[in-house]
Amino acid sequence: MAKLARAVGIAVVTLAAGALPACSRDVVAAAAAGDPLPSWKDGAAKRAIVAFVARVTRAGSPALVPPSERIATFDNDGTLWAEKPVPFEMLFAFDRVKALAPQHPEWKTTEPFASLLKGDMQGVAATGEKGALEMVAATHAGMTTDEFAGTVEEWIASARHPTTGRLFTEMVYQPMLELLAYLRASGFRTFIVSGGGVEFMRPWTKRVYGVPPEQVIGSAGKLKLEARDGKPVLVKLPAVELIDDKDGKPVAIQSRIGVRPIAAFGNSDGDRQMLEWTAAGEGARFALLVHHDDARREFAYDRADKSQPLDKAWNEATQRGWTVVSMTNDWATIFPRLPPH
Amino acid sequence: MAKLARAVGIAVVTLAAGALPACSRDVVAAAAAGDPLPSWKDGAAKRAIVAFVARVTRAGSPALVPPSERIATFDNDGTLWAEKPVPFEMLFAFDRVKALAPQHPEWKTTEPFASLLKGDMQGVAATGEKGALEMVAATHAGMTTDEFAGTVEEWIASARHPTTGRLFTEMVYQPMLELLAYLRASGFRTFIVSGGGVEFMRPWTKRVYGVPPEQVIGSAGKLKLEARDGKPVLVKLPAVELIDDKDGKPVAIQSRIGVRPIAAFGNSDGDRQMLEWTAAGEGARFALLVHHDDARREFAYDRADKSQPLDKAWNEATQRGWTVVSMTNDWATIFPRLPPH
Repeated sequence: MAKLARAVGIAVVTLAAGALPACSRDVVAAAAAGDPLPSWKDGAAKRAIVAFVARVTRAGSPALVPPSERIATFDNDGTLWAEKPVPFEMLFAFDRVKALAPQHPEWKTTEPFASLLKGDMQGVAATGEKGALEMVAATHAGMTTDEFAGTVEEWIASARHPTTGRLFTEMVYQPMLELLAYLRASGFRTFIVSGGGVEFMRPWTKRVYGVPPEQVIGSAGKLKLEARDGKPVLVKLPAVELIDDKDGKPVAIQSRIGVRPIAAFGNSDGDRQMLEWTAAGEGARFALLVHHDDARREFAYDRADKSQPLDKAWNEATQRGWTVVSMTNDWATIFPRLPPH
Repeated sequence: MAKLARAVGIAVVTLAAGALPACSRDVVAAAAAGDPLPSWKDGAAKRAIVAFVARVTRAGSPALVPPSERIATFDNDGTLWAEKPVPFEMLFAFDRVKALAPQHPEWKTTEPFASLLKGDMQGVAATGEKGALEMVAATHAGMTTDEFAGTVEEWIASARHPTTGRLFTEMVYQPMLELLAYLRASGFRTFIVSGGGVEFMRPWTKRVYGVPPEQVIGSAGKLKLEARDGKPVLVKLPAVELIDDKDGKPVAIQSRIGVRPIAAFGNSDGDRQMLEWTAAGEGARFALLVHHDDARREFAYDRADKSQPLDKAWNEATQRGWTVVSMTNDWATIFPRLPPH
């Protein structure tokens, strides 16, 4: 039964992401009534989105933007899906460390592996970013890109969130799925520009968000072309190629896309430079921050959060008139509705 | 009159690239008769292309490939446009050195600049790849990406080829324009994967090839986010980020696209690894090399060419059954027909 429910759950998310109208019955009804964003409550944020899309797409609008320049970029962790208690890619890395531990007896006495294998998460946390990078490197390096994609596909289809029990692909934000679909239906190309690993996202972003692999930009390790069994393979090296965060986001947008976005969506200070870069272009621009203020339905954190603070970017949003979404007040639904099981 | 002719020339190339059917009257007639590749003579190369496209796109074909995986990658220099007497980007760099020389009195006594400014092209050639890289760095670094794009747009709209007198965008291959359009009409996404500079290609590839900036991959320098006049800008640094040649091509395809192509097109040993990577995937695959064997209508060079040899890749094509295009025998037309002026 669990397997069946999981399979159905995936199918529902796919429907939600793949097309407008989205998944649940009220959503379908609202979309049929002409509302492309049925999970958004009527309010300043929703009205700002709809007004912007009308300005840049309506024939005769003085701010009309040709389809070739309708580029929208989205952060992933905390913007398209949840990121608590820790970014989900870290949970993947933890599971990979546990799976690979039998081949690495030295991990029993080496941090951060030793703490993780003992279940001492405070010990893991104490190793900080250095520990996190070591775990990512240890669980990525040496594999081919195809092998790595296989481990991601297996994990994402079965691993569950520690508090909600949902598949991680069921912890995407229904309002953002609708927004992605609405923008694409309005002639936009939608890109993910995330601090998360590009090879961790690409195996499932098309199915879940409708975003194909080549429109996913993320942090990345270096790759090396080798021959194995007489065939060329790309091997993941334990060296950083791109950290797609903060200043790295505009740099990556230019190097990978080559066009400045006209709309950008984020939720933390790591997205500030992407929003500034987007907003500084000529003509109509749109910048939006998701504010996690709904402890009941999701998580609540902002200025004081250690790993993903929304602080400087929030100040700037206030000064520059960027749109700030209150998850409590602006979103009627947070996660996609799951089928009964 | 010259200005008018240039403007018209651009319009013709645009038409040729923008849609199927392509530009000239016989081409339109052939396309109307159902031939998507009217500038290709009937022969093994054309038949191989059409058979491959049918295999991967026809409903019920055992080798059917879903549209999401129909990725085709094209080298640029020597594959989509000509590359003699030297890759056109070098001519751009030469012109930039001349334009910037008044601000660099030291160049009068520093190689390779001194030779270039004296018109001593043998002296320039003697400085080899090191000299070329120095010229590229000196003429790129310190500019913002927007400023650089502006210099490219100005140059590409006015500079002319030293022997044909054509605009460089008129030295694209008509058969390849048709092939790009044919593949796109068959559900493919067409990418450029070139050793040339990505920032040199992006300003004009959409207009000329129908390939948008985000589907252009090329060699690149590092970028730095800075504030100038209170606005964020991306500044080009004199440091290499990516050399998109040889092993670098599969690496760049994975890092930028994340999907292995099912078809790849090149013309020299620099494309060998891209064709191997493409051909080594499962299912139907297509690899093609353009052989420059038409000294009368274009240029003739292959194994012995110093800068762009077609040697190892040619051997491999023979062994593996890759398609080799003879420009003399397979192409009815080389360059787009220009309007009378």
